[in-house]
This record gives sequence, structure tokens and C-alpha cells, in this order.
Amino acid sequence: MFSGKRRLAAALVVAVLVLSASLTVLGQGDRWYPSRWGADDQRGAANRLTPAKVLEARNAITKGVVYQLGHVYEPGMPMFGTRHFSLRIPQAFKMPGRNEAVYHDEIISGELGQIGTQFDGLGHLGMGDLFYNGNRRSEFAQAEGLTKLGIEHVGAIVTRGVLIDVARFKGVDQLPPTYEITPADLKGALQRQGVQIRSGDVVLIHTGWSSLWMKDNAKYGETEPGIGVAAGQMLVDAEVVVVGADTWGVEVMPNPDASLSAPVHQLFLARNGIYLHENLITSDLARDNVYEFMYTYAPLRLKGATGSPGNPVAIR
Amino acid sequence: MFSGKRRLAAALVVAVLVLSASLTVLGQGDRWYPSRWGADDQRGAANRLTPAKVLEARNAITKGVVYQLGHVYEPGMPMFGTRHFSLRIPQAFKMPGRNEAVYHDEIISGELGQIGTQFDGLGHLGMGDLFYNGNRRSEFAQAEGLTKLGIEHVGAIVTRGVLIDVARFKGVDQLPPTYEITPADLKGALQRQGVQIRSGDVVLIHTGWSSLWMKDNAKYGETEPGIGVAAGQMLVDAEVVVVGADTWGVEVMPNPDASLSAPVHQLFLARNGIYLHENLITSDLARDNVYEFMYTYAPLRLKGATGSPGNPVAIR
Amino acid sequence: MFSGKRRLAAALVVAVLVLSASLTVLGQGDRWYPSRWGADDQRGAANRLTPAKVLEARNAITKGVVYQLGHVYEPGMPMFGTRHFSLRIPQAFKMPGRNEAVYHDEIISGELGQIGTQFDGLGHLGMGDLFYNGNRRSEFAQAEGLTKLGIEHVGAIVTRGVLIDVARFKGVDQLPPTYEITPADLKGALQRQGVQIRSGDVVLIHTGWSSLWMKDNAKYGETEPGIGVAAGQMLVDAEVVVVGADTWGVEVMPNPDASLSAPVHQLFLARNGIYLHENLITSDLARDNVYEFMYTYAPLRLKGATGSPGNPVAIR
Amino acid sequence: MFSGKRRLAAALVVAVLVLSASLTVLGQGDRWYPSRWGADDQRGAANRLTPAKVLEARNAITKGVVYQLGHVYEPGMPMFGTRHFSLRIPQAFKMPGRNEAVYHDEIISGELGQIGTQFDGLGHLGMGDLFYNGNRRSEFAQAEGLTKLGIEHVGAIVTRGVLIDVARFKGVDQLPPTYEITPADLKGALQRQGVQIRSGDVVLIHTGWSSLWMKDNAKYGETEPGIGVAAGQMLVDAEVVVVGADTWGVEVMPNPDASLSAPVHQLFLARNGIYLHENLITSDLARDNVYEFMYTYAPLRLKGATGSPGNPVAIR
Repeated sequence: MFSGKRRLAAALVVAVLVLSASLTVLGQGDRWYPSRWGADDQRGAANRLTPAKVLEARNAITKGVVYQLGHVYEPGMPMFGTRHFSLRIPQAFKMPGRNEAVYHDEIISGELGQIGTQFDGLGHLGMGDLFYNGNRRSEFAQAEGLTKLGIEHVGAIVTRGVLIDVARFKGVDQLPPTYEITPADLKGALQRQGVQIRSGDVVLIHTGWSSLWMKDNAKYGETEPGIGVAAGQMLVDAEVVVVGADTWGVEVMPNPDASLSAPVHQLFLARNGIYLHENLITSDLARDNVYEFMYTYAPLRLKGATGSPGNPVAIR
Repeated sequence: MFSGKRRLAAALVVAVLVLSASLTVLGQGDRWYPSRWGADDQRGAANRLTPAKVLEARNAITKGVVYQLGHVYEPGMPMFGTRHFSLRIPQAFKMPGRNEAVYHDEIISGELGQIGTQFDGLGHLGMGDLFYNGNRRSEFAQAEGLTKLGIEHVGAIVTRGVLIDVARFKGVDQLPPTYEITPADLKGALQRQGVQIRSGDVVLIHTGWSSLWMKDNAKYGETEPGIGVAAGQMLVDAEVVVVGADTWGVEVMPNPDASLSAPVHQLFLARNGIYLHENLITSDLARDNVYEFMYTYAPLRLKGATGSPGNPVAIR
Repeated sequence: MFSGKRRLAAALVVAVLVLSASLTVLGQGDRWYPSRWGADDQRGAANRLTPAKVLEARNAITKGVVYQLGHVYEPGMPMFGTRHFSLRIPQAFKMPGRNEAVYHDEIISGELGQIGTQFDGLGHLGMGDLFYNGNRRSEFAQAEGLTKLGIEHVGAIVTRGVLIDVARFKGVDQLPPTYEITPADLKGALQRQGVQIRSGDVVLIHTGWSSLWMKDNAKYGETEPGIGVAAGQMLVDAEVVVVGADTWGVEVMPNPDASLSAPVHQLFLARNGIYLHENLITSDLARDNVYEFMYTYAPLRLKGATGSPGNPVAIR
Repeated sequence: MFSGKRRLAAALVVAVLVLSASLTVLGQGDRWYPSRWGADDQRGAANRLTPAKVLEARNAITKGVVYQLGHVYEPGMPMFGTRHFSLRIPQAFKMPGRNEAVYHDEIISGELGQIGTQFDGLGHLGMGDLFYNGNRRSEFAQAEGLTKLGIEHVGAIVTRGVLIDVARFKGVDQLPPTYEITPADLKGALQRQGVQIRSGDVVLIHTGWSSLWMKDNAKYGETEPGIGVAAGQMLVDAEVVVVGADTWGVEVMPNPDASLSAPVHQLFLARNGIYLHENLITSDLARDNVYEFMYTYAPLRLKGATGSPGNPVAIR
């Protein structure tokens, strides 16, 4: 795709980006808190959501077509580690009265904020004891719920959404396992699509990986293609609000640097207050070449939760 | 509010409506299934959602202001009967690597589709063995999830929303306990607002009742003002998709006819495939006189569930 | 093991037993309720527990050795169908005070009465709508707990226990899959051991099957050796209180008669009020040739539950 | 009860005991680990259980009467803080076959090891980061279960049990709220009963407090009478295995020294490996003057749990 010198130059740029990002990740020589939204802020990049962004998103609605981006929650879906999901219908309740009203509810248990299609809040992941805005896990992580950074602080997200179809750009249906998406990949894909990212956007990345969902769960969960630290930094610089993907972790897993675990999670959540949206369905958008849309998602206001399940929606 | 003859006439109209609606509720002399969307339909009034409705809703977005309509899920919230909600943050997980990634998730249990802000699916309530479209509870209500009418069939709802501020129309902050909202109330309030209901809309009713939420839970849950069978039938005839309210059951509880339990639930869910959205926050919309908006809500795709928690959104 | 005529005679006896038991199972020509303990009884064979049986059991204690018969409840243990077991340690609670008291608890969810080592109560299984003592499932099976036949009615069981080592009698370490244990097997094994069953006893059957536990869960759960209807009837006639085994269902699965599911469960629970104790560890008793002991087990008094987890104990 | 000089002497003895115990609690000038059972021990005082103790307990069985010491687990039972207990009966499962087998199970969730009648394991409570045998909470307290000191290490407890009826000794039906049971109380009550504690015993204390159970839960849980540090130390010196009571915490709550929280828990669990059994039913034993018995209880072998529910049994 690149030839000769340009290829070398690009590689150098990436190398420098990776190096600086890596240093940033490790917190050497930088100071990443208090956040740009003040020392008391708990919403991070959700502060970028404005009425102007809503109106901008409205303009992306031209056909009235709605896409569900969330998977069905069901037994047998891919699950990280030993997390679980259980749903049962108890015996029916019969109400008094000649109209014979009868109803059911359901008993559900599980790591609800971190299974299936899931939205990572700022209290989900940090580095050591430090989380977003310098909050200390040892203080805010309480048994009955996080006393800071809980998902209930996020609010509803209604903004412009952009799909970056990296698989298409690379000419494949599915990126290979452990493939690290680079800044060049993101730029190239955006250029192909003729779309630009703007401050306050939600960015969704299509890798094709979710075609394994419920088909080959073992492969789905073992590794994944995804953005690396350099691409992550590019999205940070672009001032996005959420980064989502059709994978279980958005970022490349395992990281090519074997000494790092989930560095993009740290870069986004802890350092920059940017949210992650995982296990999305992006294939419908990709199929229909929908690259700009209104993204609307409101996390369940689960007090003190680290994340939320959900069924985010793209409207064009 | 009404004088002399007009009052009498109105009362007669209501009486007739109540009587016919009551007969309808009890299934005498009518045949309410198969549904108008066919004998196999599982989506009910969600079939009224169309691209045209999305575009209509888009036009209601003029200011870019977003309202969260869902309550916070937290210990101490009003809970029906012996339902429960529990959230706990387990010990943190420490990942290997020099970047010291640490994360939490949460363990949640409860009647998730039927606590807090909740959306009732078509498998939630019926009459005797009969549910929407003539489906039999004894067949589809299975321990591991409903095999028909599960909430996963609804899909995302993006349509025009209308708030009917009945409290304002009646000149009160909060409708009194057990007050039955009549067709005249709905019409009067709509007329005051200068708004009409159209096929495919979502209608939310503001009663002021939710000011008791977390303030006086006992009073909140003991009774509630809400629509009766006649007002319900009016909304059925208006071909709405969802009816919501800032109460725990949308309809007046207990029903003025002591021999009936939840007849409006039956009218909506079983007979007409119309959904209920309960325990909403409508006070912000009412305060800002927001009567038309884009309503967007996508139930969690919980396979075989009777309902869904959520944080529906109104955008104007 | 048998020769000539005696073998034929034995086979005939078994055939007759099977036939009559089969008829009994199917309820043809018999009337099995009210129970012998009266029409209101909810305890079944637990009524056979008496101070005399306790003293008889006491006499079996000669060495002071205690055997745990219950498996560890842990992730990865064999689980029937889609049942689940989840245990998490929430964040610690720190108490005020100079002595720095800190504590944890655990959040557990699952089908607690029917996973791992489990004791089946009389409300667990029936035939159609009929359960023990003619109680109707449609009446007593309520969402918030069984209103009759709940496990809380059983009480503590302290009585003489007898191990029947059928594997040893058959000269194998483990009975083969789907092997039906016959009355002749039970009699032969008891004769070899020099032990007799008496009214009010608990009988545990060693098949060797549990050596598959956590080793080959798939094989463990797919089938199992166990008693058939004829052997079950023999134990009914012997007036036992509980029948347990080192298998997940005590009875042979699948039943040799492909038109029957769990007929021994029906014979024991519904018809005769005899309890089942499943997924036991009997290998230690078998290894030490412990055939008589004090069996002591008190189900968790879970109001309205169908069963109980537990760690029953054998003392000799 | 005491006169003149003896009273003074007794008071002095108590004062010294309290002082030394208090110092011990605070860890000043002592070194309480490794444990007397070695640096790797995880069973604590359960090591005192021997065949000889079993045989000793056997001799306490003279009448064949069995007492259940565990409460019923049910909605509405007293619950500490925001812990919960939920039980639901899902829809029935129908099996194939002409014998129409139908069964139920139950879905349970809650802090199962620390609600209702509960047995505290050595991983339940410590001081700061230090738990029994010097184990550090920061190391063994993992999300998926304690990696040390889990309840599965305890094993079955079959030993001599002694009831100390302190209420009777003090001439009341129920000890008053916040009453601290002293060594003199224990000694006096034992003397009245003509019973002595021996190494390896389980000691249960009757206060009469549990008559409030399900009657006045608020009062039951607000405070409680119980042993203080001095009486706790006396039981430590007596080398008991478990100390139980008909209260929610065994020890006096709040502690008379307002600067201490749960010091007896620390003394027992962390420093001496002695278990606590809480929310017991001791009234039947007290009523029948049963002061010596076989105590038999086997914690559920919940891997990595801090405690266990249960229905312990006393046999005399």
C-alpha cells in the first residue's frame, strides 16, 4: 500500500508515536491529573457533549434508518474469564380480580456492566491505585458501589458517530488475530470513506471480528485485533468521547509489547476520560456504508457501577 | 372546570367509554387475536416504527437539549413487592505487566426487567393463560426465558415523543392518589399544549407523582394516579407505540372498579401490543414545557425477558 | 455370579418387580395419596426419624472418624443444564475504631438447592401436576417459594447410615455408564458386606462414578449408572429415609425404558416421600470399608426451596 | 451475688483481664503469628477436633433428641446492613416421557455466608491487612474467592457442645441491650449448670436475644448483649473451637470501649483461629436444660468463601 521512502517515513512516525505514547502510558515525565475539566470532574470526555453536537448529529439523520449496535444477552455468549449471566423466569404472579391478570418478571444475575455489549465507565480500569482524575481506588472502590466515577455520572450520550471500517480499508472481511490497528490505518480508512473525526464524536471501529460471536467464542475471546497505543493517542488528540469496536476490548489483545496489559484502556479511561464501548455490532453499518450517524446511548444509571450493558443505536 | 350540561354530557361519554372498554377488557363479545400484524407477530405496536417516524422525530430536535428519563438504580429505591436490586463491587483484578493495569466489575442481581425505570414487554402480563397475539403462557413461559414475546424482539425505538402534562392541566403539582385520568383530561391537556398525538408516537404522562421517589416510597408505591380504561382506549385508538408515566404502573392503581387488577396493562400489552414505560422522570420535560421531542430507547436485548431496565432519552 | 436355574429365577423376580414398579410409577391401578403419614404431612419419610434411630446411629460410632460427603462448590464443577454458581468477594468493609477491624463477605448466586452436592426435597419433582401427598404444583409452586413441601419442613436428619458398595460387589472401580443397579446387586452387595437395611436408615450407594468429578465433567453428566425402578422399590419397601449416591441423579440415567424420565425420582419423592442425596463423595467410606455409620445432615432451612446444598457427614 | 471482699477481688481480676486482653487486641507488645499450628495452617482451632472428641461427644447422646440450631432463611429476616437474600422458583421444567416428570429448582442470591444463621470463617475479619496466621488480605482476598482461609478448609465439626445459659444465671429471660457478658458470668453460669468447658469444645451462649428474631428486627440488630474481650479471652484460654450465640455477632455490640469495633471477632478469628457461629437458636436447648450435647455442623464447602450458612445440630 505504501512504497519505498514513504513507507519508511510512515514507519518512523509510527515508531515515534508508539514510543511517546508508551512513555505516556507509563507515566514517566508527565502529569495527567487533575483533568482538563477540573479536579472534581467525574464525567471526563462526556463534557464534550453539547447541544451543538446534538444538532450536528441530527443532521446526520437523512434516511430515518435505525441500527441496533448491541448483541443479544443470552446463555452461551462470549464471556470474559469467569463472569456469568443468568436469566430465569419465576413462577407467574396471579392478581386478584375478575379480569384474571397474570404477570411474570425475571431474575437476572451477572457482572452486568461488564458482559456482552458493554460500556466501560471511568471507574472500571486504572493503573495501580490511580484512576481518572487521580482518584484513588483504595478510597472510592467500596463494596456497595464506587463512591466516585460511577457510571451514573456519564449521562445520556447523543452525538455524531463515525464508523471507521478498517477491515474494508485493509481489503479483508476480518482483521487477523492480534492485528494492531495503526494511526495510518485509521487515517487511510477515513480518507477512503471521505469522513473526518471532530471533537465530541463517538468513533466506532469495524474489524469484522464479531462474526465469530456465538460461532467460535473461544477464538473470539482468545485474542483480538484492535487499536494500539499510537492509534489510541491519535483518537485522544482528536478529542473523541467514546471509542467502540466489534471486539471484546477495542484495543489489540494481547498488546504487541508483552510487558503491557490493556494500555489503551489506561490511556482512554484513566488519562483522558474517554469511554470504551465493547462487543458492538458494527457489521450492519459497514454493510450499508454508513460512516456518519447519530449515536445515541444512555448508560443504565446504576449507582456506583463500573460500566453498563446496553443497546446503543445509530441513526442515519 | 366544566359547567352544567357539558359536565353531564362529558360524564355520559366517559361512562359509555368505560363500559365498552370494560367489556373489551373482559373479552366479552370480541376477538382480539390474531393481531393486526399477523398471527406470528411478536413486536406489536413496535411495527408502527418507520423511517418516516424517525424523520418526524428528527424535526422535533431544535435546541439540541437531551433529557434523561430514567431514575438512578440504587438501594432504597421504590420496589414492587419483594423484588430486589443488589450491586456489589468485587475485589479488583490486577493484570500482569509493568503498566499495572487494575480493573473492577460489578455483580448485580435482581428482577432487572421489572425494577426502577422499566419497560414492559409483551410477555410481561396477560389474562389467564392468554398473552399478546393469543400466545399461551403455559407454552412460552419457560424457566430459561420466554420462548415467545421476549423483550429482544422489540428493537430500538426512535420516534416522536409527546408529553401530556395532566398535572398542569388540572392545576396541581401532583395528581392525587388513585386519581383516574380520563379521556377528557388527556384531550384537555393536549389542547392546552397545542399538541396532537399521531400514529406511531410514544406518549408520556406527567402526573407529578415521582416527586415522591426516594422521598416517600411507601406513599409512592401504595397507590398512584394514572389513566383508566377509557383513557387507555383513547390511546389505543390513537395508535401509539408506548405509553409511559412518572408512576410505577402508568394506570390508576387500584382501579376504581375494585373487581379489576391492572386492566390497562391487559388492554395495552395483551390486546393491542402497546408497551408501557414505568417510573420515568418527566418533571424536567414538564418544567421546560417540552411537549414534543425525539424519544429514543432501545431495550436491553435480554433474550426471553419480560421487560428491560433503561434510561430512555428525550431530545428536543 | 449366578448359575443356571437360580439365574433364571432371579431374572424372573426382577422382571416382575420391574413390571409392577413400572405400573406403580405410571399410576395405573393404584392410589398413592394421601400419604401414610396423613393428608397434611409435608415431611414424608423424615417421619421415620426417631430418638431410637438416633441412639441406634450413636452405636455405629466406634472410632470417632468423621467423613465429609459433600463436594467443594467451585467454578468448573459439573452442573446440570444451564444452572450456574457464582461466588465473588466484594471490596472489604472497614469498621471505625482504633483496632482497625476489616471484614469481607461473599455474593453468591445460583440454583443453590440443585447444584453440587444436593438434597432433593419433596417439592422438587412430581408427575404432571401431582407431587408428594397429592399436592398440586399449580397451587403450591409460587414465585417467592413453594407454599408446601418446602425444604424447611424436613428438619435435621440424624440416623443410621448404610453404604452399599455396588462397584466392589461387581468387581469394578466404577460401574459402567447407564448401568442399572438391580435388587440383586443391592442384596448381593449387602450380603458381601454383612449388613442389613432397617427402617429409618439412610442408604448411600457407591458406584465409583464420582471419580469423574472435575476430571471429565462431560462424561460425568452425560449418563450415569444408578438404581432402576426395581431397586428403588426394594428401598421403598425397606422404609428408608434418604437414598444417596456418588452420581448426579442417584438413579440410572437415561432409564433403560426410553419412554421414562426420572421414574425413580417420582417413586421416591412423589409416591413415597423418600429424599434423594446427589453428588456425594462416597469413595472415602468405600476405601475404608465403612458400611455402617451415623449419617447427619440438616438441610439449610431455605423457606420454600426445592432442595438444599450441603456437606453431609458420616461418623463411625 | 458476691459480697464484700470477694466482689472487689473479682472486679480486680476482671479489670486485669480486660486490660491485658485490650492490649492483646491492639497488638501491642505481642506477636500472634505464626499460629500454634504452624505458619501454613488454615484451619485454626479446627485442629483441635480429634476422634477422641468425637467419642466424647458421642457419650453426650443419651436420649436421642435432635435440636436444630439454625433459623429459617426467609424474606424479612434480620439482615446486617444492605445484605440481601432472594429466593425465587423459576418456571417448571417438563421432561420428556410418558411418566410426565416435572421439576423445579430455585434461584438464590445473597451474601450467603454472612446472612441468617452463619458461621464465620478465618477469612472473614481481621485487623488492617492482617488476618489469621499473619495472612495479608491484600494478597489472599481475590474477586473469585479467598485464595487462603476459605471456609472449605474447616471440615466437618463433630465435637462436644456446651450451652452456657447466661440469661438464666442472671435471672432474666433476655439479657439487656449492650450487656457485656463477663468471665464471672460465664463461670457462674457454668457452675450453676455443673458443667465444665474442655479443650476442643464448641461453646454456645444463650442470651435470650433471639426472641426478637422476626418480631422486632430493628431492636435485634441495633445492639446486642454478648461477651466482651475478657470473656472472649477466657474462652480462648479454654481452647474452644467455636463460640456461638443467639445474637447476630456473639460479642457485645457496640463494645463498651467506643474506640473498638468487633474486638472479640479479631481475638477469635485473627489471633486464635476460633470460629464464630451467629444467629443461632439456643432457646430450645435452654428450655430443656440441655447443657452438654454432640454439636455437629459441616460448613458448606464454598471455595474461597468467608463463611457459610447452615443448620447446626445439637444431639443429646
